[in-house]
Amino acid sequence: MRKVAVIGMGHVGATAAFILFTHGVADELVLLDKNETKCRAEWGDLRDTLGRNDFYVNVKWGDWKELADADLIITAFGDVAASITTGDRFAEFPINTKNAVEVGQKIKDSGFKGVIINISNPCDVVTSILQKVTGLPKSQVFGTGTFLDTSRMQRVVGEKLGQDPRNVSGFNLGEHGSSQFTAWSTVWVNNRPAKDLFNEAEKEEMDRLSKDNAFMVGKGKGYTCYAVATCAVRLARAVFSDAKFYGPTSCYVESLGTYIGYPSIVGKHGVEEVPVLDLPADEQAKLEASAKKLKDSLASLE
Amino acid sequence: MRKVAVIGMGHVGATAAFILFTHGVADELVLLDKNETKCRAEWGDLRDTLGRNDFYVNVKWGDWKELADADLIITAFGDVAASITTGDRFAEFPINTKNAVEVGQKIKDSGFKGVIINISNPCDVVTSILQKVTGLPKSQVFGTGTFLDTSRMQRVVGEKLGQDPRNVSGFNLGEHGSSQFTAWSTVWVNNRPAKDLFNEAEKEEMDRLSKDNAFMVGKGKGYTCYAVATCAVRLARAVFSDAKFYGPTSCYVESLGTYIGYPSIVGKHGVEEVPVLDLPADEQAKLEASAKKLKDSLASLE
Amino acid sequence: MRKVAVIGMGHVGATAAFILFTHGVADELVLLDKNETKCRAEWGDLRDTLGRNDFYVNVKWGDWKELADADLIITAFGDVAASITTGDRFAEFPINTKNAVEVGQKIKDSGFKGVIINISNPCDVVTSILQKVTGLPKSQVFGTGTFLDTSRMQRVVGEKLGQDPRNVSGFNLGEHGSSQFTAWSTVWVNNRPAKDLFNEAEKEEMDRLSKDNAFMVGKGKGYTCYAVATCAVRLARAVFSDAKFYGPTSCYVESLGTYIGYPSIVGKHGVEEVPVLDLPADEQAKLEASAKKLKDSLASLE
Amino acid sequence: MRKVAVIGMGHVGATAAFILFTHGVADELVLLDKNETKCRAEWGDLRDTLGRNDFYVNVKWGDWKELADADLIITAFGDVAASITTGDRFAEFPINTKNAVEVGQKIKDSGFKGVIINISNPCDVVTSILQKVTGLPKSQVFGTGTFLDTSRMQRVVGEKLGQDPRNVSGFNLGEHGSSQFTAWSTVWVNNRPAKDLFNEAEKEEMDRLSKDNAFMVGKGKGYTCYAVATCAVRLARAVFSDAKFYGPTSCYVESLGTYIGYPSIVGKHGVEEVPVLDLPADEQAKLEASAKKLKDSLASLE
Repeated sequence: MRKVAVIGMGHVGATAAFILFTHGVADELVLLDKNETKCRAEWGDLRDTLGRNDFYVNVKWGDWKELADADLIITAFGDVAASITTGDRFAEFPINTKNAVEVGQKIKDSGFKGVIINISNPCDVVTSILQKVTGLPKSQVFGTGTFLDTSRMQRVVGEKLGQDPRNVSGFNLGEHGSSQFTAWSTVWVNNRPAKDLFNEAEKEEMDRLSKDNAFMVGKGKGYTCYAVATCAVRLARAVFSDAKFYGPTSCYVESLGTYIGYPSIVGKHGVEEVPVLDLPADEQAKLEASAKKLKDSLASLE
Repeated sequence: MRKVAVIGMGHVGATAAFILFTHGVADELVLLDKNETKCRAEWGDLRDTLGRNDFYVNVKWGDWKELADADLIITAFGDVAASITTGDRFAEFPINTKNAVEVGQKIKDSGFKGVIINISNPCDVVTSILQKVTGLPKSQVFGTGTFLDTSRMQRVVGEKLGQDPRNVSGFNLGEHGSSQFTAWSTVWVNNRPAKDLFNEAEKEEMDRLSKDNAFMVGKGKGYTCYAVATCAVRLARAVFSDAKFYGPTSCYVESLGTYIGYPSIVGKHGVEEVPVLDLPADEQAKLEASAKKLKDSLASLE
Repeated sequence: MRKVAVIGMGHVGATAAFILFTHGVADELVLLDKNETKCRAEWGDLRDTLGRNDFYVNVKWGDWKELADADLIITAFGDVAASITTGDRFAEFPINTKNAVEVGQKIKDSGFKGVIINISNPCDVVTSILQKVTGLPKSQVFGTGTFLDTSRMQRVVGEKLGQDPRNVSGFNLGEHGSSQFTAWSTVWVNNRPAKDLFNEAEKEEMDRLSKDNAFMVGKGKGYTCYAVATCAVRLARAVFSDAKFYGPTSCYVESLGTYIGYPSIVGKHGVEEVPVLDLPADEQAKLEASAKKLKDSLASLE
Repeated sequence: MRKVAVIGMGHVGATAAFILFTHGVADELVLLDKNETKCRAEWGDLRDTLGRNDFYVNVKWGDWKELADADLIITAFGDVAASITTGDRFAEFPINTKNAVEVGQKIKDSGFKGVIINISNPCDVVTSILQKVTGLPKSQVFGTGTFLDTSRMQRVVGEKLGQDPRNVSGFNLGEHGSSQFTAWSTVWVNNRPAKDLFNEAEKEEMDRLSKDNAFMVGKGKGYTCYAVATCAVRLARAVFSDAKFYGPTSCYVESLGTYIGYPSIVGKHGVEEVPVLDLPADEQAKLEASAKKLKDSLASLE
């Protein structure tokens, strides 16, 4: 049986729980949040859905001891309002670095031995803290990172060509934040490289659009939830089915010495491998700058 | 191709749109709301999900002319805060009766010829107005009504017995509001009638729990969305597949002279039949009282 | 992770495996058959599907040691041609009672500790043997039994009324074979009991039609697969999600002293409860006659 | 509503119908075959499944007039035994070129105006005949072609690397038959081109394995069905959702003057575009040789 806990019942966590529930991905679903009223409400809304859902799911709430035998945890705590208001995911840095320590400790105390997929922002930093505090192997703790930014890029490129975003391969790399970038050298559509399809102005325009879209969603609804929660559940499915799925996550990249958005192989043990990307110098420089920003942030905490 | 429009991008409408999107129920999805910023944000969040969704869906927003060739509309407009704060869905009566006229007129002007499933509260009243204003046949306009309350009842009965809510048959009837009630004479579990399973005190306790749960969800998250939106999409699926599905909806019951929560047969033309329920006198009286409340409310508008 | 083994790669077993695969019900799927060529072929066909499936599934074949840590086994061995040619599922009795001992022993030897759902015919007899040989608790070994016959009855009643078969509640009981019968006292549609909807002639006609349909499918395609395999997977889903789902299975009924088609509660431990049905005398007599037939058959083996 | 007809109720057609049914892709499903007994049996098996399926689907059989308002037809007629016995899909050439004329004429006579996805072998030849006889635009008639061979290649490459086949991009091109080939210049895994990952011997080994797998499946079960039927349904989904999905199909390539396996953009009008692939000389030569074989075959018919 697949037992999943979602920590943080804000819009993102609740949406992740709902996706797990409505697609029958989880057999047992545990909802956790400091705000017990909110947590219990999300539990109640899901329980009231059971009579109309294609799947039965055993939904529980509030008991951190349930983590002991959970297979997978999705973390989605934080104060997203801060990010949205400022337009910078680092606005959640002060509060979520503290949350991460607290949540990580609770996870550790529970005896949890599974895989953690972190969504909380700043994603790479929080993932890093969760790994350190829980003491789990680096492979078992990773974040959605630029899996979301990549989806946004695919959408923009797809829209430009009037095509299904899934026709677009390639990655956004780096921090899940302002220093992330589309590695255009990796982008292919219809078996043609981006460099043959788009000029520099077009690529810049798409970079801008991709960021504007995220900002427009955040401002317009006060948060974003569907894309990021769907990303998290897709990674959860890769873990459960041991898919050895290749996609960008916030994973620990040895050569950069930090968690950062980078393509990885996801299977039942989490990020099981991080194949080296051969990037052109300018993209490698951007990646290293992004890594430095993340390492400096983490260092500032000590 | 299945073309669905969702009118009202509050939490309920957005969730309905997401369910249609994430399960591939709609091929083309049109999002509409007076608040264009919010509407465009929901559109953006879904578009950003396309790269990670199992289904491609053509999501659009803001153009009411798209209704002309839509197959189905889900309406979910209103000011749910009013209902939650007061604990009475009739708190939305003043605003939503006006909204219903306005939205109904826009639907009519578009030339829409399909089926409307209404969620907006007070559900039975708004459904009634939408039918009148659009001039569509009564069969083609119906509401989620007590399909939701019934699911809540199933859940409570299921929890009491420690079973899947889908083991529980039977209905909640009447207004989707304070005068609705569980028609215990219709409730069966494990091939045994409720009267053999529960005493009066237990039934009252479950009635109370069912209402408390809804209230607890509303208070706890500021709205309810998963159960009601799932109900709407399940009815939409019955329409698309012409299932002749039997379940309670807010449908027009000739003998009661009003839209009200009552079991009906749902197929491609909407509510295609309303088989008569043979109720005991006390339940029939409750139903008629509920119908009177609804008719009086509508009369008060003229 | 959900690990399922399917034993018997005839049409039924292969279809069950495909449903598990195409709906992502199994994370790991083990295909087993004496006929290694056939088994490997089904494995190859599923593996070739992976690039187009919504789910990754780790499909393996041929290694009985994989049963050791499987969560669930579906058994679908046998020589269906014998049943089809003769029109009697007992035609497989001589061969499948031997197969059941052989397969049961292999399961036992593997150290398997999970739940077995048996499809092989004669379903109730084979289920009984599998339970005895494996030594697993009776709850953990059950069969699809009249879950299929019930679906066939629902379909016929639904067609008669022009409705979704899922509007029809009630059960077929007894042997999954010629002595099974529709317990019309349990059948309700649209909240009305069968006795108010149909006269005796109509009920007999529907009984006949239901059997004729099964025969027509068997003769026409040489086997039946979609309905029965879907039944098995639906029960598997109830086990994985611990649904406490109420439906007819071939389960051990204490008062009858045999495995037989009877409504039961299905959860993670298999058939966790068999609530007593209060049947009218004529139906109870039919049920007891059916039970006697099954017990006599089993006795004849000793 | 989505109305789909499947012509040919052999294993492939029946499996395609079952996938459409079990995933709710079709609202209305029409089964057609010269063999009415077989056709009615498949219809009966699906109808018997309705009570256990997540979706209601209106399944019909035998009436060719139903094609008049169908949105999509999947053709899967033929005598697969001939192909399997000889190991050459051209063994079905004599019989299926006649079938194609006959079926095409019936489709034309019905007044069908939708999209045809052909599976029948030799796939490219039959697709070509169906287009000519029906007189539908070339875009609206296409075949599964090397969409299947590509999936087989992805699987083999995935297995070699121990990864999800969906990590593998690239195409098999040419005839869906013995002259098809993996265009290794188009194959990328983990953002690395095949030429950096595999030497010539490895590529040849994988080419061989891919063909052997197909042969092994065909010999082992007497036919192949899951992979090819899943391919057809995936293309059907791209048509219904107007996805502008990029993938190899048997489409008409102007520069080659024939239907042949080649990447195309699939949307609601069928193959809406065939972007030119820039192939190295050796692969272009193989493609042209394959095209010549197909054109010669067609010419031999006149």
